[in-house]
Amino acid sequence: MAPGRVVRSATASRQHVASGGAAVVVNLAPLLSPRSVAVVGASQAGGRATGAIRSLNDLGFEGPIYPVNPRYDEVLGLPCYPKLEAIPGDVDLVAIGIPSERVFQVLEEAHQKGIRAAVIFASGYGEAGEVGRSQESELQAFAARTGMLICGPNCLGVLDLHGRSAGYSSTSPKGLVPGDVAVVSQSGTIIVALVRSLRGIGFSRLVSSGNEAVVTTSDYLRAFLDDDKTRVLAAFIEGIKDPQAFLSVADAALERRKPLIVIKTGRSEAGGAATAAHTGSLAGSYEVQRAVFRQKGVVLCEDPDEWIEAIELFRYARAPKATGVGIIGVSGGENALVLDHAADLGLHIPVLSEVGREKLAAILPWYARAANPIDPTGAFATDPDLYRKCLEVLAQEPEIGVIAVSQDSPAHFDVAVAEATAQAAAASDKCFVYFSNFSGPYRPEVQAILRQAGVPYLQGIRESLKAIKALMTYHAHPQPTERATAPDHSRRDRVARLYAESGAIITEDVAKSLLAEYGFPVVRETLVASADEAVAAALAFGYPVVAKVVSADVTHKAVSGGVRLNLASPEDLMEAVRSMREDIGTACPDAVIKGFVVQPMVRPGIEVILGIKRDPQFGPTLVFGLGGIFVEAIRDIAIRLAPLSAAEAGSMVEEVPALQRMAAKLGSRHDLPGLAASLLLKLSELAADLPDEVEAVDINPVILDPASGTATVVDALIVKRQDEGR
Amino acid sequence: MAPGRVVRSATASRQHVASGGAAVVVNLAPLLSPRSVAVVGASQAGGRATGAIRSLNDLGFEGPIYPVNPRYDEVLGLPCYPKLEAIPGDVDLVAIGIPSERVFQVLEEAHQKGIRAAVIFASGYGEAGEVGRSQESELQAFAARTGMLICGPNCLGVLDLHGRSAGYSSTSPKGLVPGDVAVVSQSGTIIVALVRSLRGIGFSRLVSSGNEAVVTTSDYLRAFLDDDKTRVLAAFIEGIKDPQAFLSVADAALERRKPLIVIKTGRSEAGGAATAAHTGSLAGSYEVQRAVFRQKGVVLCEDPDEWIEAIELFRYARAPKATGVGIIGVSGGENALVLDHAADLGLHIPVLSEVGREKLAAILPWYARAANPIDPTGAFATDPDLYRKCLEVLAQEPEIGVIAVSQDSPAHFDVAVAEATAQAAAASDKCFVYFSNFSGPYRPEVQAILRQAGVPYLQGIRESLKAIKALMTYHAHPQPTERATAPDHSRRDRVARLYAESGAIITEDVAKSLLAEYGFPVVRETLVASADEAVAAALAFGYPVVAKVVSADVTHKAVSGGVRLNLASPEDLMEAVRSMREDIGTACPDAVIKGFVVQPMVRPGIEVILGIKRDPQFGPTLVFGLGGIFVEAIRDIAIRLAPLSAAEAGSMVEEVPALQRMAAKLGSRHDLPGLAASLLLKLSELAADLPDEVEAVDINPVILDPASGTATVVDALIVKRQDEGR
Repeated sequence: MAPGRVVRSATASRQHVASGGAAVVVNLAPLLSPRSVAVVGASQAGGRATGAIRSLNDLGFEGPIYPVNPRYDEVLGLPCYPKLEAIPGDVDLVAIGIPSERVFQVLEEAHQKGIRAAVIFASGYGEAGEVGRSQESELQAFAARTGMLICGPNCLGVLDLHGRSAGYSSTSPKGLVPGDVAVVSQSGTIIVALVRSLRGIGFSRLVSSGNEAVVTTSDYLRAFLDDDKTRVLAAFIEGIKDPQAFLSVADAALERRKPLIVIKTGRSEAGGAATAAHTGSLAGSYEVQRAVFRQKGVVLCEDPDEWIEAIELFRYARAPKATGVGIIGVSGGENALVLDHAADLGLHIPVLSEVGREKLAAILPWYARAANPIDPTGAFATDPDLYRKCLEVLAQEPEIGVIAVSQDSPAHFDVAVAEATAQAAAASDKCFVYFSNFSGPYRPEVQAILRQAGVPYLQGIRESLKAIKALMTYHAHPQPTERATAPDHSRRDRVARLYAESGAIITEDVAKSLLAEYGFPVVRETLVASADEAVAAALAFGYPVVAKVVSADVTHKAVSGGVRLNLASPEDLMEAVRSMREDIGTACPDAVIKGFVVQPMVRPGIEVILGIKRDPQFGPTLVFGLGGIFVEAIRDIAIRLAPLSAAEAGSMVEEVPALQRMAAKLGSRHDLPGLAASLLLKLSELAADLPDEVEAVDINPVILDPASGTATVVDALIVKRQDEGR
Repeated sequence: MAPGRVVRSATASRQHVASGGAAVVVNLAPLLSPRSVAVVGASQAGGRATGAIRSLNDLGFEGPIYPVNPRYDEVLGLPCYPKLEAIPGDVDLVAIGIPSERVFQVLEEAHQKGIRAAVIFASGYGEAGEVGRSQESELQAFAARTGMLICGPNCLGVLDLHGRSAGYSSTSPKGLVPGDVAVVSQSGTIIVALVRSLRGIGFSRLVSSGNEAVVTTSDYLRAFLDDDKTRVLAAFIEGIKDPQAFLSVADAALERRKPLIVIKTGRSEAGGAATAAHTGSLAGSYEVQRAVFRQKGVVLCEDPDEWIEAIELFRYARAPKATGVGIIGVSGGENALVLDHAADLGLHIPVLSEVGREKLAAILPWYARAANPIDPTGAFATDPDLYRKCLEVLAQEPEIGVIAVSQDSPAHFDVAVAEATAQAAAASDKCFVYFSNFSGPYRPEVQAILRQAGVPYLQGIRESLKAIKALMTYHAHPQPTERATAPDHSRRDRVARLYAESGAIITEDVAKSLLAEYGFPVVRETLVASADEAVAAALAFGYPVVAKVVSADVTHKAVSGGVRLNLASPEDLMEAVRSMREDIGTACPDAVIKGFVVQPMVRPGIEVILGIKRDPQFGPTLVFGLGGIFVEAIRDIAIRLAPLSAAEAGSMVEEVPALQRMAAKLGSRHDLPGLAASLLLKLSELAADLPDEVEAVDINPVILDPASGTATVVDALIVKRQDEGR
């Protein structure tokens, strides 16, 4: 067993890791795979601490267990010690099962004895008001000072199923099958559910991490990555404590091809509040998290059912060698339903090759269609080998990477179908998946046949197909990618100077000159102070023109009456400048007006928005969507962490299919999506040049012209980061 | 037992029912609850027909069973007859278990003997190519001639669990608990799955209806409605054979408060093809079906899991007396996940009253939050009555109609939680729902406690909350509503005349005068033949103006270059007319140009589309969404069957939240959604006046002006129905 080793700051304090303090490698082995365990609070009357001893016994732990309690001489047949220092041997882990107010004393004693890891079961910390939060800060300060590895507080602890060791107290792990899935969950009940066994999924490690005052989900995942016995990583996350560490472990997981399968709660505002109450975690914007997870190859699930199916699938599935899915099922009606869900998910269900269709036609009865999905019909009842032959045909199709066997578990045939599937899987190197169209009952006979053949056995049409989609996406995911272009240092310096000279809000005129540095095609414009100057400037462009107010105090110009489009004459322009002064005076009485910009009217086209938005957890993200007033109306937005690779820029644009549809509708012969992607790469350069300085950039709208295939930046705004905290 | 009675045409031919032939009431009792059954094809060697005898025996059927087969004297201990006419007594139903080619002879003999109902198990009909389709047509002609009630072909038949009778052959129904759910399914495997028992749901009737050559899903549902033992109706539908009959039975189900819970396959094009192959059903546009189902109060489920949960919930749930949901669960993390899903579904999770919060604070430990969702925390383990007390607080909240108890079935506490729930439900008249956050394992101990208390026991966060949402929606659904206003006959005659005089495509100019009849605010315009006439017309409006080509041969004017906006001067206008002729000449060389319309340029605003689209199954539907080029880009569309009630018009507009968001973004103080709804009611009048004549109406765009709160119809097109088939 390779003990987990994680990269942490020298002080072991989470805050330092997140802000990039000097990192050292910390070995989590004493915490995750202790060879000797002291249990403080052990009692002849039972309780949390005594539960920890029972868990060790139930696992068959072979190392020494030291109950600690001054009131007893023995607990559960073991000699009991009055305090930690009285223990004769070395101790890797202390499991602390006493109320929070007495925990510090024990930690101090543990440190004195040279113990390097602790599990704190008690609640009453970060999740419990003022008093609790201050106790949690003290814990963190203690860990920073001593380097103590602490699991919890407010947790059930850690289980090592292969090493048969633990610092865990809850439902007994007796009978749990060791396997290759390692799970960390901030929610304890999720761990209990897994310990009570769902379909005999085998675990290597289970960690109930609780409040994560010291050791975090990212740390545990890093340790799981280094563990030879673990092939699949799973996490139930309420809040990510150290976003940068999480990103780096996600990258490492992708690189090492250990899939990371996650449920993240708090995607609704309401859900966020419930989470905050529970563990004091900060729930970030779910849209950003979802985008970041996708970018990092993390498999994101929305409920426990999806999570269990994805875990089961990723555990057993062979890597798909093609993107198509072949489907077989004895029910035409249910096959239709499976197809509906496959279409919803964007799964590719290829038409069979001519050879394949001919083979099928020879196998199937005359009234059956030789097509994907295959319905072997009732004829299967009298010819059990028919099913296997159909599977063979699917396995030989070059476009098919996954063969999905759809069957009712509550119906008959399921054992025969499982046997046919096992046979076909043995004769092929393709990826086979068996799933029940009803989530239950789960049939042990079916499971036994499939497990032996290494075929995943899933439940529920929707969950199963969603898991298959995730598998396809995962295996198509590139390794962590670099930004598209090398940095241009002299430009970076020019931009940084211009940026430093500006106020907190960088208005349209300066923002556009900054964007021009990156090659953005900005609309021509002249900054003027008066109506007369405006008319003079308009001469250079020709009518119609646009006039807009320039003021750092007016961020939403259009709403406040600070934009006049389509001005056809000098009279219109002068009137526009006059009336804008009036409207802004009413809408924003305290606004200082720097002047007005006059621009030529850009021909209407497809308006898109490109932006940078600093996420409080993950840092600068790039945003793309339909622009103009549709930004807020449609909310069809693609998000990525900056900087982007070229492939990522392309995939962002693909996530806004409305752009492609509008371009088609307007009959454009130009590659407008490609144009938008190239602009995103320019913006990514800006984000990379000013990673900590920018709060937000709004380039809205950029008008894409379907006729000429060109883009024009019509308006832009930059908001500088105020609380830079560097 | 009230025998099912259905409204059918005199000829019992589905085609006549659908097209509105003279209807009579037909009694399905001989088919659904036969008192005597002949089984043709019974054999000592087993087979489909013999299976039908076994099913009757397994059910404890008390009437006479007559095996028919010239090769045997007895089958399964019963005297066997050489042919139907040899049977001594009356026969209600003949179950035909022989291949399709010999079925007609048997039907003929059955008719001679006065038998009124038949089940045909064999396949080889509509689902099986040319030959099959012609056999199916013959069946329909036979039924039309004789009035024979036929279930199937290509089916498993009918089961009456209370009357203990059947014409059914497949997995044995032995041990099935009689109950109050009646199911009809075009897919046989679904019936097999239900017969194999899912969680002991009790059924009154199960019908595998197969190809529905004669008796349809709508007919069975009508019979279920009339059945006293049935409270919940469920259907698995591949294609609706008689859409108008289905709409009428859905209305009746709503009126009589028997919920109708449906899975409909074929929502993707791919799914549609698989269905067609299976039963030859016509799958309509799923968006229209979904809208129609919602409008009619049908509960639409997307997979078998959702269907089973909705059936379980509707079976047991009390009617919610308020719209809020109170949630309780011992896991903060899982509560957060439940809240996420509740928010996704738009469930209302009310803040607790002050009284409620005070009561909770007195019950819960100090470190718990007194809020909805309630987390009783681990304290529940030592104080089992804590849970019941929390439930009591939720039950007393005036805003809470449903109390949702969230618990892991694989975790501990579940039996104690079920007991607390049962106690609280007994002491309250509110609706209680218990659900497991994991779909499985299903725990019989938990079920037994909840069943006794009449509390639904559901599985899966997503499915459970979706079912609760459906329950809320169902109980808030109004009874079937009438169109908003009485018809205006003289207007109808004027419009019909104008309509009759027009060609197949009614162009902008005529379409707008037709719309003006209904009070639509259409843009002013003049039809002109030349550039000079255009300039003269523009004088009346003032510049800028719009010019558009008028041609029945150019349906997509904008794409073909037939629209010029924002023309600022007579020169621009003349040039526009010239260049449009040129562009149309290139894009549509054969188009006959009727002329040009000149219109004042309407101030930009929010562009919406209103339309009528004839659905091939259900007839005229009304369509509403964002307009202009966004129609196809965004695809955020609301659909309803015409005519509309005022409430339905309002709910259509609510289904396009982008409108409300854009109005807010533009700072409008006017009720633009209300304005849009009033226009929809006008369009509904048109649809009601010309129910069979219109193929499509596109009013696109209607510009809603956020500043003035007015609407202007800028463009419109009407396509007449070609194949009127009346």
